[in-house]
Amino acid sequence: MIYLDHAATTPMRPEAREAMEPYLGEHFGNPSGIHGISRRAKNALEASRERAAELIGATDPLEVVFTGGGTESDNLGVAGPVLATGQHRRGVAVSAIEHEAVLETAGFLERLGHPSTVVPVGADGRVDPDEAAAVLSSNVAVLSVMAANNETGVRQPVAAIAAAAHELGIVVHCDAVQAMVSEPVLVAYLGVDLLTVASHKLGGPKGVGLLWVRRGIDLEPVLHGGGQELGRRSGTHDVAGIVGMVAAMEAAAADRDRFRREVAAAREVFERRVIPALDAEVTASPDDRLVQHSHLHLPEISAESLLIRLDGAGVAAAAGSACRSGAVATSHVLEAMGIGPGQAGSSLRFSFGWTSSVDEAAAAAELVVELAEGLR
Amino acid sequence: MIYLDHAATTPMRPEAREAMEPYLGEHFGNPSGIHGISRRAKNALEASRERAAELIGATDPLEVVFTGGGTESDNLGVAGPVLATGQHRRGVAVSAIEHEAVLETAGFLERLGHPSTVVPVGADGRVDPDEAAAVLSSNVAVLSVMAANNETGVRQPVAAIAAAAHELGIVVHCDAVQAMVSEPVLVAYLGVDLLTVASHKLGGPKGVGLLWVRRGIDLEPVLHGGGQELGRRSGTHDVAGIVGMVAAMEAAAADRDRFRREVAAAREVFERRVIPALDAEVTASPDDRLVQHSHLHLPEISAESLLIRLDGAGVAAAAGSACRSGAVATSHVLEAMGIGPGQAGSSLRFSFGWTSSVDEAAAAAELVVELAEGLR
Repeated sequence: MIYLDHAATTPMRPEAREAMEPYLGEHFGNPSGIHGISRRAKNALEASRERAAELIGATDPLEVVFTGGGTESDNLGVAGPVLATGQHRRGVAVSAIEHEAVLETAGFLERLGHPSTVVPVGADGRVDPDEAAAVLSSNVAVLSVMAANNETGVRQPVAAIAAAAHELGIVVHCDAVQAMVSEPVLVAYLGVDLLTVASHKLGGPKGVGLLWVRRGIDLEPVLHGGGQELGRRSGTHDVAGIVGMVAAMEAAAADRDRFRREVAAAREVFERRVIPALDAEVTASPDDRLVQHSHLHLPEISAESLLIRLDGAGVAAAAGSACRSGAVATSHVLEAMGIGPGQAGSSLRFSFGWTSSVDEAAAAAELVVELAEGLR
Repeated sequence: MIYLDHAATTPMRPEAREAMEPYLGEHFGNPSGIHGISRRAKNALEASRERAAELIGATDPLEVVFTGGGTESDNLGVAGPVLATGQHRRGVAVSAIEHEAVLETAGFLERLGHPSTVVPVGADGRVDPDEAAAVLSSNVAVLSVMAANNETGVRQPVAAIAAAAHELGIVVHCDAVQAMVSEPVLVAYLGVDLLTVASHKLGGPKGVGLLWVRRGIDLEPVLHGGGQELGRRSGTHDVAGIVGMVAAMEAAAADRDRFRREVAAAREVFERRVIPALDAEVTASPDDRLVQHSHLHLPEISAESLLIRLDGAGVAAAAGSACRSGAVATSHVLEAMGIGPGQAGSSLRFSFGWTSSVDEAAAAAELVVELAEGLR
């Protein structure tokens, strides 16, 4: 199988699996206890927290809140500060191309009486800082804008948007789930106040993530209970998962230069063959994409039919139409960029990752061209 | 180390570790995709769902919602149906001895305008069905009562309480996290509408749980996003964790008779030595406890000092005072039973589990007696 769906999830890195092992075995303690078995788990947890903070450029490890994944981090990062405004019912603003975990949280907040504003996106898939500033107001408590889009791979001008929001006293949350594997995601550089990281997009285990929360920002928790994580996220710590995630973050950081080089080469080989042969176009701004994304419009090709044939031929990819709960619907990201259902239905996402090679990319390109030509 | 803190967390069962392995490795797919690698993960997920439903006596696998742990299941099981009442702002009722995950969720709901009622508990640690009926009203949307208490181990008359609540049209949530390892937890027998199960208390991995939701019950999700789990719980599935949890549920069910026999024998050996030697008493009703719990009042002994000495001597146990976020506070469970800070500060929880033996119990009892006598 040639796996070109690394943006959906990527295989675990060996460093992450190895780091987890002791915590699935003899070091099984619940870090909230007070005896030696608990303390060993607690030490691993706190060492992971320190390392995670360093890897995102945070100065204070206590700003790192471990969660059950990117979706939970997005829920907490968006709903947490908005719900903490209580009876003031301040609002939330989200860019039109955010992940569903952000958009649906905004919908939930709206049902609770917190008004919601959508920041538009251009045809190039980018949120423009001036347009963002134009729709924001001081009644907005939180603005959420992602570092790079998970479908198109388009990088967002987060620092400029955050600066505009900060002038209005708005707290800024950034979903860095998709960007972090290939871009150094440093909180100071982004200038945001809350940052979402997901383990399994980096080669760590599923079911674990983190939210970085700048000191001084109040959160209503999403998960209430025993008060772990300084009351910001309750629930017994998944120590093995946390240790595995941080090992993956570390491995991804150490591997970033090689990753960028090899993935860029693989994507170039792939696109050089596919684009001219099929009159394809790169969706959105070709020069401002994450290095691992190849989101292509293949005119006159049904993306779904091609995906099924690719699957049969041993290539795993994804549709430009998002797959939610198994149902294929037009992607809200493409829709927000003004792309109609016709083009969306002919768009595919090929996403490369740490196991990708130029040879695999070349073989996949041949299959894409052959099967697409057969469909025309 | 003699580990007598299985109620906090228990080592993973080999069946669970083994079952997880392929999903930490080659079967790494995100079940929400449409290609072969995703389908393999999806198949494992759905097979786990079917088996989990069978193991709790549910007829419909789609009633099983996989979550990130017991705390999340409690949050969803309590807040889900209450928030779904929307502007009607119906209330929530919780027994005084529920886990913090339930109590703090009730507090959150109260902040959102949903009134909260506390059902009292007797000196025996049991919630009385008549007293529950007396404080309930039809303005309550959800009542939460646990199958057995996590500190004292006292089993609750859930079926009778649920019947009284149902007469008022109240939906009943039951936290079975602590009970399930030694008691067959079957939803029909309990007569409830929502049931929380946590993996790591059964010998599965941490960071995963499930909520059984009777068909027809509306939930506002706790985690909003991509719409996994039929919209009831968003977030990429932790397939390895889910497969591991269900393998642990299966192993615990197959091992239940042996577990009950050996753990009962171990506890008896332990208590027969400790109780007369230290004039100790079993907290609450001695005859209605889970077989694995020995919650003891040791007069004139500082629980904290004894725990530290036990830790030094190689015995891991827990205090009658709950440890929340590292801070020792008087347990709300003991307080609700009318136990003052003096007795609470002299109470310890010894909890046995699947690795416990009579020999270990005897050795631990000697150490408890010796160290406690040294403290007096």
